[in-house]
Amino acid sequence: MSLKKLTSMSLEFSYSADLKKSEFKILDQTLLPFEEKWLIVESLPQMVEIIQSLRVRGAPLIGVSASLMLAKLAIENKSQAELQKAATELYESRPTAVNLMVCIDRMRAVLNSKFSLENVVNEAVAIFDEDVQLCDRMATNGAALFVDGDQILTHCNTGGLATAGVGTALGVIAKAHAQGKKIHVYVDETRPLLQGGRLTTWELQKLKIPYTLITDNMAAQLMSLKKITKAIVGSDRIAANGDFANKIGTYSVAVNCFYHQIPFYVAAPYTTVDPTCASGELIPIEQRKPSEVLGVQGHFGSVQWAPLDSKVYNPSFDVTPAKLVAVWILDRGVYTQKDVDAGVFLK
Amino acid sequence: MSLKKLTSMSLEFSYSADLKKSEFKILDQTLLPFEEKWLIVESLPQMVEIIQSLRVRGAPLIGVSASLMLAKLAIENKSQAELQKAATELYESRPTAVNLMVCIDRMRAVLNSKFSLENVVNEAVAIFDEDVQLCDRMATNGAALFVDGDQILTHCNTGGLATAGVGTALGVIAKAHAQGKKIHVYVDETRPLLQGGRLTTWELQKLKIPYTLITDNMAAQLMSLKKITKAIVGSDRIAANGDFANKIGTYSVAVNCFYHQIPFYVAAPYTTVDPTCASGELIPIEQRKPSEVLGVQGHFGSVQWAPLDSKVYNPSFDVTPAKLVAVWILDRGVYTQKDVDAGVFLK
Repeated sequence: MSLKKLTSMSLEFSYSADLKKSEFKILDQTLLPFEEKWLIVESLPQMVEIIQSLRVRGAPLIGVSASLMLAKLAIENKSQAELQKAATELYESRPTAVNLMVCIDRMRAVLNSKFSLENVVNEAVAIFDEDVQLCDRMATNGAALFVDGDQILTHCNTGGLATAGVGTALGVIAKAHAQGKKIHVYVDETRPLLQGGRLTTWELQKLKIPYTLITDNMAAQLMSLKKITKAIVGSDRIAANGDFANKIGTYSVAVNCFYHQIPFYVAAPYTTVDPTCASGELIPIEQRKPSEVLGVQGHFGSVQWAPLDSKVYNPSFDVTPAKLVAVWILDRGVYTQKDVDAGVFLK
Repeated sequence: MSLKKLTSMSLEFSYSADLKKSEFKILDQTLLPFEEKWLIVESLPQMVEIIQSLRVRGAPLIGVSASLMLAKLAIENKSQAELQKAATELYESRPTAVNLMVCIDRMRAVLNSKFSLENVVNEAVAIFDEDVQLCDRMATNGAALFVDGDQILTHCNTGGLATAGVGTALGVIAKAHAQGKKIHVYVDETRPLLQGGRLTTWELQKLKIPYTLITDNMAAQLMSLKKITKAIVGSDRIAANGDFANKIGTYSVAVNCFYHQIPFYVAAPYTTVDPTCASGELIPIEQRKPSEVLGVQGHFGSVQWAPLDSKVYNPSFDVTPAKLVAVWILDRGVYTQKDVDAGVFLK
């Protein structure tokens, strides 16, 4: 019996062609960069825990993982009703990642109106494949903007750990490197959760792309010394007018790029565009718990250095206005302010 | 026998009027904010260790502490030669704090050409007193710029823990608060060494000044939301043209203030001005060890989250050009760009 296999930097899903057996493995991202442990996913409660504890993270990857979980349960001969119940549980496993809802809604459409084992598996595989393709297209579109000698600043983690494919912003960087362009990456550590320091560094090492880790407040000085030529980030939501939300700290990067006349790019799949959201100030900003700012917590250890009763401000995201963006790199193309003004994000 | 006593937030030096006894206590800053432990300083090697391990820190305070150590040794009847040797050892205890060299040079002048127990003690006391007075004058000059409702961003620690007096930038803030002005402070945590998160928070709690702790990359978002009205920082060196060096991250604050049209102030004593340094690019920038960026280390604990072999960039300071400064707050007065252009820093 032949085996089909979907693989990414942090997912592995294999299944027999007769849809009788499957194996689902997920790289536990909470243990990175020091330990690469693959979890074998065997039950729905385990998958929910994996999502909620951020062992799998990155909005696109969460949606893909949840969809593959439904495929696995279908292969295990779960009934239509059981799969519908599982879909609901997965849908509710994390509240803010829009991709999770979009993916589960696609799976539900199949579960509800054209249910069959083959259709469920095919839809999950299609979701995986589409994510890979969107990343590839973004990467190709974006890589064309980079040249030999570019010193690229990036923020947070937007690579193969956040998607089923090569990533968004980091996928663009990886593609430029794969094309043989001599580039170097400055990695913002990305306080408070350190996705840059922990995950982007790990990915760049894997990809053998030269990088230098900095604290977020060092980027401006590097710009003043002309050591950064371009900046590229991902996005959690793009409004119809081109304003976009991304990991806290992104806006400061954009302002500093503007001041130093450095091109500032954002890379995201079309699914990140929200045509119903007119502009950035309408994007809700999640506030997170104070402990993340009072210290650091992770599998690497936990310490607190600030007085426990300190008042803390801890928004997870900030909003960057369209006017600070040089171009928007999407799977469908590279858009300028003129394109955005002409309504390219309204469709 | 009457007792004379010099006290600051983190120093206590008392001596009998007949110069036969003294006691020198230093607050161990490495244990803050969780433990307030006063060290009794009893020997030169202990004092050198205290300086080198950053138990006492802040350029002005290091110079004051070293001077008082020489006074204590003089009270213990050390010979002129022994004191000269001790001066050299203290001078070399830390390489970059200019105030230490300036203070020890003043003490050496007394040791070399008008040596007596009384003169040595008097010079150290004068150094302490002058630092207190410089802080008071800066505080008074600067506080006049603040009004009810001000939301003030500050970076690093520039208060009573860094000087013998009320501080530089934080002294200005404390004075405005003491004058009854309703202000609120946003404290940059100040990666990598977290002087904001550990020390400025502790001082503001002591002073009962309301504050909110943020990661450095959040300030720009607060500015865009109009939640910051003014920013004030200290300085490690001011060039003749008004450019100045300060803790890494200061420049990013300045750029963001410029973009958001928020007044950006620098506060420092006249001793920080270096008339022999024409402009900012001539100020040498110390590079520090990678471990500070790969994780955090302190009495609060030590963790590392980045791959050990990550290449790291870790400058201790950055340079902010004069054009981004609204005014320079010195003990001698408040100066504008016009004053600087007229050569006020050349004297």
